[in-house]
Amino acid sequence: MAEKKLGQQTVKFNNPPSIISTASIAGIKEGEGPLRDYYDMVLKDDLFGEESWEKAESKLSRETVLLSLSKANLTPDKIDYLFAGDLLNQIISSSFSARELKIPFFGLYGACSTMTESLSMASMVIDGGYADYAVATTSSHFCSAERQYRFPLEYGTQRPPTAQWTVTGSGAAVLAKNGNGPYVKFVTTGRVMDFGVKDANNMGAAMVPAAADTILRHFKDTGLSPKDYDLIATGDLGELGGELIKDVVAKEGYDMGSKYTDCGIEVYDTEKQIDVNAGGSGCGCSAITFCGYIYDQLVKKNLGRVLLVSTGALLSPTSSLQGESIPGIAHAVTIEMG
Amino acid sequence: MAEKKLGQQTVKFNNPPSIISTASIAGIKEGEGPLRDYYDMVLKDDLFGEESWEKAESKLSRETVLLSLSKANLTPDKIDYLFAGDLLNQIISSSFSARELKIPFFGLYGACSTMTESLSMASMVIDGGYADYAVATTSSHFCSAERQYRFPLEYGTQRPPTAQWTVTGSGAAVLAKNGNGPYVKFVTTGRVMDFGVKDANNMGAAMVPAAADTILRHFKDTGLSPKDYDLIATGDLGELGGELIKDVVAKEGYDMGSKYTDCGIEVYDTEKQIDVNAGGSGCGCSAITFCGYIYDQLVKKNLGRVLLVSTGALLSPTSSLQGESIPGIAHAVTIEMG
Repeated sequence: MAEKKLGQQTVKFNNPPSIISTASIAGIKEGEGPLRDYYDMVLKDDLFGEESWEKAESKLSRETVLLSLSKANLTPDKIDYLFAGDLLNQIISSSFSARELKIPFFGLYGACSTMTESLSMASMVIDGGYADYAVATTSSHFCSAERQYRFPLEYGTQRPPTAQWTVTGSGAAVLAKNGNGPYVKFVTTGRVMDFGVKDANNMGAAMVPAAADTILRHFKDTGLSPKDYDLIATGDLGELGGELIKDVVAKEGYDMGSKYTDCGIEVYDTEKQIDVNAGGSGCGCSAITFCGYIYDQLVKKNLGRVLLVSTGALLSPTSSLQGESIPGIAHAVTIEMG
Repeated sequence: MAEKKLGQQTVKFNNPPSIISTASIAGIKEGEGPLRDYYDMVLKDDLFGEESWEKAESKLSRETVLLSLSKANLTPDKIDYLFAGDLLNQIISSSFSARELKIPFFGLYGACSTMTESLSMASMVIDGGYADYAVATTSSHFCSAERQYRFPLEYGTQRPPTAQWTVTGSGAAVLAKNGNGPYVKFVTTGRVMDFGVKDANNMGAAMVPAAADTILRHFKDTGLSPKDYDLIATGDLGELGGELIKDVVAKEGYDMGSKYTDCGIEVYDTEKQIDVNAGGSGCGCSAITFCGYIYDQLVKKNLGRVLLVSTGALLSPTSSLQGESIPGIAHAVTIEMG
């Protein structure tokens, strides 16, 4: 087995990278949600002063990275690698953002798992000695996602109760070789899992097998269990998926109980905010929740050890039209303040 | 500066990963090209026995990985990480392939730069001590790319002389901690460059600034020059881009001369094969050329040191419709048999 590997899918960092700063910019609806005080900025206009939602999302991505760098007193030329991806075809939000930032760029596609995919890769290049600084980031935008994946917004399509609401927002984390934490301690890389769910309006359920596989693998590889964590947060399983995964993981002997939540449940007030139905989704969902609220709580030592498990549904409109089911993937990252 | 970093963008491996096997599967037109004898398999049918081109491409991706593993006497459960991406929206070829392979999966999007993007990441996780084995792979399919990016094939659209032909094919490389070479010695990670080209029928030219930036940065970071290489191969600049980059790099004092070629020029006989116009393109272009011909020549020691520079155009139909120019990226990997 590789020297820094624990079990089949987990890496342990001997020189844990420090997340020296984060930034989050949230959309209007997210800015009305319960975590509003933790975002660095809330948009007043979903177009962010641009001519299209796609250009707005790219600006969101770029401005969030620049804000995370300025909070760490760094400039783009000091950053060794940028790991970024998003939901749009050919990840144009990230690519066009990287064009302005001029940081050596690895483009990723992990759908809504991108926050932890990028954190995983950024952590490895730093612990591996290839970088002093790396940025992990992702974004999503309700309007650009909706028209690409579903229907033109102008249709005013009705959405079933299982549907989730794509978060408009971006989160960026600056990782460094040296720093005062919080630190990335473990990374558990997910496999693509598919239990045959075909309902694109119930993506939370479609992603549960992948999330469960990664969480269980993480516990087995590390020997840790839910009691070792202050918080275990999946990315965007929503209310239905969130209930389901607690059961699935409990059946294998790991009771996550009150330690568990889902960023898609936390990001909105699903009782009061209209149309969010089963909660939030999108790359931005775990990105703004982690880079906003969770990071803040780690720095303040209100949370000691967190398992962040961003979850991605790897469908495309084409694969769905061709009768394929929805495969999922989830990557887990342990972040601790110690 | 990070301990294993040379200059701004290059990593030097102290324990160079060995590429212990490669596999390549090519389409019909590629199988009629000059490198036909180096592919492991040539399709007899562009649908590869599937019901759609997208499913065919995913099968192509999966079968190529399985073939590369069987040539190395390995099974998927022995592989620590799979790095894969492709041109299709939401990289469905790679994601659905990874679903069958069940290898921990990092999805990438670097357009046609994906072969060296995946080789770069795979090399870092092995040299970094996180993996004993990793697979780097990518694919493209003329028919799936054409209908996604351009027009339905049934239109029979005429293509200008600057247009390139998307390669149908997939290449996969198995990297290992221990092996007899060829070895990955350096990785130079590219930045997104954009000189304002907007013609999606002249993508070679659009990618030249990125390729030149990465190649020049590689020479500056490593202190190497064209005379230290037996072959410098870009991914898919084609005939026009290929001429252009020689001039641009020569003006900075590095004469690549006869050491230089482009995989898009080598993959077809542009004099005799109809419709390929300015040469090949697509993720599969540098993938099958490297995993077929170049790898073979390294193993036979006909080539001692090669710089492979896969080149990606980061446009999407949406970004083009919104008036954006075409940004490019290029990642360089030094492979040597020593």
